[in-house]
Amino acid sequence: MVIKSDLTEILAEYLIAPDPGRAGLTRPVQGRDEHGRLVDLSVVEERPLTIYLNRQEIVTAMTIGDYPEYLALGFLRNQGMLLPDDVVTRVDFDEELETVVVRTEVETSHEEKLQKKTRTSGCAVGTVFGDMMEGLENVQLPATPVKTSWLYALAHKINRTPSLYLEAGAIHGTVLCHRDRPLVYMEDVGRHNAVDKIAGWMLSEGVDPEDKILYTTGRMTSEMVIKTAMMGIPVLASRSGFTAWGVEIAQQVGLTLIGRMKGQRFTCLSGDARLERDMDPRDAPVEARKHKRKGEQ
Amino acid sequence: MVIKSDLTEILAEYLIAPDPGRAGLTRPVQGRDEHGRLVDLSVVEERPLTIYLNRQEIVTAMTIGDYPEYLALGFLRNQGMLLPDDVVTRVDFDEELETVVVRTEVETSHEEKLQKKTRTSGCAVGTVFGDMMEGLENVQLPATPVKTSWLYALAHKINRTPSLYLEAGAIHGTVLCHRDRPLVYMEDVGRHNAVDKIAGWMLSEGVDPEDKILYTTGRMTSEMVIKTAMMGIPVLASRSGFTAWGVEIAQQVGLTLIGRMKGQRFTCLSGDARLERDMDPRDAPVEARKHKRKGEQ
Repeated sequence: MVIKSDLTEILAEYLIAPDPGRAGLTRPVQGRDEHGRLVDLSVVEERPLTIYLNRQEIVTAMTIGDYPEYLALGFLRNQGMLLPDDVVTRVDFDEELETVVVRTEVETSHEEKLQKKTRTSGCAVGTVFGDMMEGLENVQLPATPVKTSWLYALAHKINRTPSLYLEAGAIHGTVLCHRDRPLVYMEDVGRHNAVDKIAGWMLSEGVDPEDKILYTTGRMTSEMVIKTAMMGIPVLASRSGFTAWGVEIAQQVGLTLIGRMKGQRFTCLSGDARLERDMDPRDAPVEARKHKRKGEQ
Repeated sequence: MVIKSDLTEILAEYLIAPDPGRAGLTRPVQGRDEHGRLVDLSVVEERPLTIYLNRQEIVTAMTIGDYPEYLALGFLRNQGMLLPDDVVTRVDFDEELETVVVRTEVETSHEEKLQKKTRTSGCAVGTVFGDMMEGLENVQLPATPVKTSWLYALAHKINRTPSLYLEAGAIHGTVLCHRDRPLVYMEDVGRHNAVDKIAGWMLSEGVDPEDKILYTTGRMTSEMVIKTAMMGIPVLASRSGFTAWGVEIAQQVGLTLIGRMKGQRFTCLSGDARLERDMDPRDAPVEARKHKRKGEQ
């Protein structure tokens, strides 16, 4: 089995790859090292973005600032505030005001619910949480088969892709993939934002989730598993760990969950029957030291 | 310079150390490895906890579940919802309902503000964010000196302390320290929760923050820096990275910020003049491989 590893070839596979050189995503910062020597660093930016659904202010997210429209759309969709049959008429980003407004043809039922709820008992975060678990009862993901050779190839390509992570660190990445091909690689200071940007892109492009794989650098907590299930993606893989509730929800909705995927090793926590071990782990590419995540949390 | 490394001696320094064997914090989970072999894992739990301030529902946090009272108190304090002169009369945790209610002598002004705000424009998250930056204008932390020998000793002790992280991974830790002594080590699925539990403990015990150091395993984003400043702690150190805005806020409030602290290396991003390099980095204890963080995100 040959795994492509030429950088040009890898980059050619992406529809959207990270653009670490893009203005505004990093800032030069000076520090001093353990010997007191000046060091010049490239550090990721972080800025507030306030998301509105029609006239309703929903949340202020901290983000690196790229793809604000995808972030807003994906956030609202993943929180169940935008339903599949809601028609989005406009998405307006105002850079100066740091706001993005998502407008729908008719005001959504969620807005009313939100207003009613906040009138009686406060912040919406609790509501949103309750609602998300509610919607999940009816979710059953398709039993899409997955080859381990795809997973190894994806990890190898993603780790080598030039990214803000490799440039500056302190950031999370999430990649939407099809078989062994990485399609859209989003990064953000919060791992949830990176996933929401992918969801927003899928919604905008009308992408079918059923044959996709989501790869993330972050931990697979309940919230991350719920987001993946809400997006209809049947496979979630990560180089990081997972929580017990994350595993439980994955089993409930039929999500294939693969954690601690580093080099040749991984652990399948849910959906192992859908996993086709078509490649000897000893043939998997070894992680070069410089491509290992640096333990950023 | 001799650094204590006997485990019993290290544990004796703590007022509160992690208790990884405590019932309810982890759950046995079975998975399959890359060869298809069954593996038994100990995985951290994650459960919802809804925090009330008097009659007002504030937020639902996802937490491992230990110290719910400290988490609630610390969260409300760090969000500026509990002010220094508010008198807390009771904190009631209901395990079955997964709620904790913080009661104050008089209803706080924040509650009114929250209700007013949510009535007009939605979720409180945005409000809270705005309010936090407002309160920060007047914060100027004391210029407490810090010795690098303390930092090296702390990292060495903390990395060796038995913890949920070493037991199960996928978790963040934050440690309140005094000079080279670790005092209170809290862990949680969210790095913010771990800090909030420390804040709650400090509030309950009336602990003076001015001579303390906060050590965290997580990234130092704006929110983490703001929390530390709100707690009045003048030094924040982490083995992870940082964002540009985190560095900017640290410089603004006079917080000594030390990042990427691993083995002998670190980078000081703010307050370098307060750092006394009293130890040759080459004499710092080398990180044993098994004590290195496993790159959990």
